Amino acid sequence: MQQLFVYHDITHLLKSTESSIASGLFNPKFPHLSPVTTLLIEVSAIPFPSCLNDKTSSKEVDLNMPLIDEESEQFRVVKYDQHDVFIAGYVMFYPCFSSFFENPVFHMENFFIRECYRSKGFGKWLFSTMASEAARMGFSSIDWYASDWNESALGFYKHMGATISDDFRVLSLSGKALEAFEDDSN
Amino acid sequence: MQQLFVYHDITHLLKSTESSIASGLFNPKFPHLSPVTTLLIEVSAIPFPSCLNDKTSSKEVDLNMPLIDEESEQFRVVKYDQHDVFIAGYVMFYPCFSSFFENPVFHMENFFIRECYRSKGFGKWLFSTMASEAARMGFSSIDWYASDWNESALGFYKHMGATISDDFRVLSLSGKALEAFEDDSN
Repeated sequence: MQQLFVYHDITHLLKSTESSIASGLFNPKFPHLSPVTTLLIEVSAIPFPSCLNDKTSSKEVDLNMPLIDEESEQFRVVKYDQHDVFIAGYVMFYPCFSSFFENPVFHMENFFIRECYRSKGFGKWLFSTMASEAARMGFSSIDWYASDWNESALGFYKHMGATISDDFRVLSLSGKALEAFEDDSN
Repeated sequence: MQQLFVYHDITHLLKSTESSIASGLFNPKFPHLSPVTTLLIEVSAIPFPSCLNDKTSSKEVDLNMPLIDEESEQFRVVKYDQHDVFIAGYVMFYPCFSSFFENPVFHMENFFIRECYRSKGFGKWLFSTMASEAARMGFSSIDWYASDWNESALGFYKHMGATISDDFRVLSLSGKALEAFEDDSN
């Protein structure tokens, strides 16, 4: 997630921390949030250990050339401590009501493939796994934001079948502008 | 809500119906959605009946001139059957996780003031009521979409303190493009 914000050059906007994310997901102060689903891509040069459960989707990929992951230690998956398994990317989404559609929708909050794993089909696999879950569960749509300068992401999403709105702008009220309403007597 | 879609000339995109909205909000098939809050503006030419509960915020407005509501019968509030009370507008929002902020955010799904009630302070009151609830409950932001041709809405939101993103585009995957993933074996 930190690399996602670096990629977008918006670390100055980032107000979340490891502990705020944990508390945002599981904070009893905000008990009514839709549960957030995160799908992780874990990669290994050798077959995975048998502790994988049946919720996990796996596939074999022939990369044709060695892949150098210079940050592998930072992204080692701790639960497979006897095996070299690393995080290649993730997607994070949650279900929500929509006034447009017959059924609820997924909002995709984050989608990220680490640099050395890009252009190898991992992103397509990750996105497809989420989209087929949405379709099978009867959700009507997936919506998300992307930066208009990010041509490779927009091209990828279009290739996956996404529609890019011509006229919607994203607005927000936060920080001091929101706090100004705290004592508002309307 | 139907008038909101007419205003945006997007009734052709509208897939929701009265029953799908009810089932989208309360469907046991989708049990994990964040609860959706709707604030309604109800107006009356005479003081409100005493059955108002203490969750209701009320104010007196001097319009200086008679207000003609040609659709008043359609928007009469049934629960006040002995009184002439009408719906002037509404806002609909729900809480959700955010990877940006320390705390969760509100997503504003709909915001609408009926035509004959515009430019009279009702929208400001409605928006402020939602924003002060967000601020008091400790939410970090409110986010929403607006159409870039809708200058009066963008002007209003800016006046309320909103930031309009320079570079975010809104994407979605729905209809046949989403259904195509249903049998996807990834």
